[in-house]
Amino acid sequence: MTLKGPIQADPAGPVVISVDAMGGDRGPAAVVAGLTDCAARHPDVRFLLHGPQDELQRLVSRRKDLAGRVEVRHAEGVVSMADKPSQVMRNGQGTSMWSAIEAVREGSAGVVVSCGNTGALMLVSMMRLRKLEGVNRPAIACFWPSRNASGFNVMLDVGADVRADPDDLVKYALMGASYARNGLGLTQPRVGLLNVGTEENKGRPELKAAHELMPSAAEAGGFSYVGFVEGSDIPSARCDVIVTDGFTGNVALKTGEGTATLIREFLGQAFRATPLSRIAALLALTSLKRLQVRIDPRRQNGGVFLGLNGTVVKSHGSADATGVAAALELAVRLARSGFSDRLAARLASVPAPRQDETGHEETGGTQ
Amino acid sequence: MTLKGPIQADPAGPVVISVDAMGGDRGPAAVVAGLTDCAARHPDVRFLLHGPQDELQRLVSRRKDLAGRVEVRHAEGVVSMADKPSQVMRNGQGTSMWSAIEAVREGSAGVVVSCGNTGALMLVSMMRLRKLEGVNRPAIACFWPSRNASGFNVMLDVGADVRADPDDLVKYALMGASYARNGLGLTQPRVGLLNVGTEENKGRPELKAAHELMPSAAEAGGFSYVGFVEGSDIPSARCDVIVTDGFTGNVALKTGEGTATLIREFLGQAFRATPLSRIAALLALTSLKRLQVRIDPRRQNGGVFLGLNGTVVKSHGSADATGVAAALELAVRLARSGFSDRLAARLASVPAPRQDETGHEETGGTQ
Repeated sequence: MTLKGPIQADPAGPVVISVDAMGGDRGPAAVVAGLTDCAARHPDVRFLLHGPQDELQRLVSRRKDLAGRVEVRHAEGVVSMADKPSQVMRNGQGTSMWSAIEAVREGSAGVVVSCGNTGALMLVSMMRLRKLEGVNRPAIACFWPSRNASGFNVMLDVGADVRADPDDLVKYALMGASYARNGLGLTQPRVGLLNVGTEENKGRPELKAAHELMPSAAEAGGFSYVGFVEGSDIPSARCDVIVTDGFTGNVALKTGEGTATLIREFLGQAFRATPLSRIAALLALTSLKRLQVRIDPRRQNGGVFLGLNGTVVKSHGSADATGVAAALELAVRLARSGFSDRLAARLASVPAPRQDETGHEETGGTQ
Repeated sequence: MTLKGPIQADPAGPVVISVDAMGGDRGPAAVVAGLTDCAARHPDVRFLLHGPQDELQRLVSRRKDLAGRVEVRHAEGVVSMADKPSQVMRNGQGTSMWSAIEAVREGSAGVVVSCGNTGALMLVSMMRLRKLEGVNRPAIACFWPSRNASGFNVMLDVGADVRADPDDLVKYALMGASYARNGLGLTQPRVGLLNVGTEENKGRPELKAAHELMPSAAEAGGFSYVGFVEGSDIPSARCDVIVTDGFTGNVALKTGEGTATLIREFLGQAFRATPLSRIAALLALTSLKRLQVRIDPRRQNGGVFLGLNGTVVKSHGSADATGVAAALELAVRLARSGFSDRLAARLASVPAPRQDETGHEETGGTQ
């Protein structure tokens, strides 16, 4: 990590986070509550809050911790979960989401955080911030609880694009490794390619093609390539970064979350089953709470859009104050580390493996 | 369920299960132990056991419950996990796997159970048992713990083929519904198509095409189509059958198993954390054991190959006695219900939606 890029427009200045107050399922009150939590932990961080001036000003003025640290930027419109991304891209100028992204584009803030419509956030981010040189498909990366020392793995893409060509998968490996370096503090992240088996002959043609390209990308990109990994390896200690297309990644992410939620319910039922088990639950309260924290998806809230000129953190639409605070915490960490510039520098340092094929839609024939 | 097909060659005779004793990670001893467990529960069931005569005879003769109920069929060769399916298909005649499948083909047994190499088992099954009329790609179906009254959902394909055309997905819906009818005792199963969102405009082209075909197939096939579902719906009560391609299904299955295993580990750590929590674990022992049973993948062991002339149950390669017993239990249930013939009759009763396109390899252009 020898790169020393500026964190934002003014690297010596304080960290500024641009926050879309609207578009989440729980409204701006949850966002401001999360903001307060983050502000209390980071007295040097400042915030730009985007949405209806009067409503936001009222919410902010009630919080002592936010005094003098939040600038509200008025935006009348709200992007709803039902809005089509393409329509938001055409007509979304007056919305809080647009305004929040614009603040990063013009250099007023280092990172943007939004709980809103993922598709719209990605499309507007792509249009306003632009893709990084050499990136065809940006990706969404998330943390996944694992047996690694850090407690997490990085997985991408978890939903930016339903398909990925071999070159995209290689770029995901580079970007995911850079994210793991900055987000998890690893020097030489281990990258695995998600497949239905670990043998070389397994899987779809685009995976076999990407598998061939990985070793040279690993050398240039400063990561280790461990080969194919399976779904059961996602929470394992076999690798630090799991690379897959946005369809598979999204299904895996939601399957993991759904499984964890189901088991939490079963656990609750088990502890309410008999009088003895209810006493046991009381005795084990501290340990169980620690377990809840470890598997609580709210605490790992925040998908990061990789491959853009600027960092965008997508919080879960249903995030409450705890969830919003976790997404903001991630944003602060990434802004502080100058992640956006480090990623750009890393991508620029790696030669494009096969420039002529970038942008292709077909995957079957590139092997 | 008005169909009354014969269970096997002699419907009035006892249920006979053909068991591949070799190829599992734990060897024939684990298989014979599981067999004993199943035999004790079903005094009327008989078994054909395939593998090296002397070794198997010795293992069987030690078990009182198996006396007079197991016929050992000698097979010298063993299909290993590393063997290439195509090679097994060409040269596998002398193996226990081949012999076990052959017993179903010739009508000596109703169902075959194997812990061996999935790819080889599928390929030999396809070649020897043949695909059912109208089926292009057979699928592997499994049970998934859920919030439904039965405690389970059915998911397919979880790994037979890494791709699926729209027509394949429609056939999976028909076959999955038939399996849920016989395996879970439902009259009108609800089928969902796995996607990255529930909106109509989400996902890959082949999914949108299958989505269009589903309503008419549902009417003809006696199931309800609930539309697109997400990964988080796999353990939910939104549907009974989840349809997807074998790549996505395999990743989802292993991700779910991996997540459950991780949480079990965390839970164990939580209960060993403090003296108080260790006492709590003792008090809650019964409840925790019930929970372990509910989320123990061994108890739902057994993927079923659908779309063949005959029923094949694939047990997990690492299955121990408990796992093998669960797979055998499933085999007995399916043999008793005459599932194989019911499924064939159901498929024959539904007109092929677009006969001219069956067999295509490309998926993008069929919308």
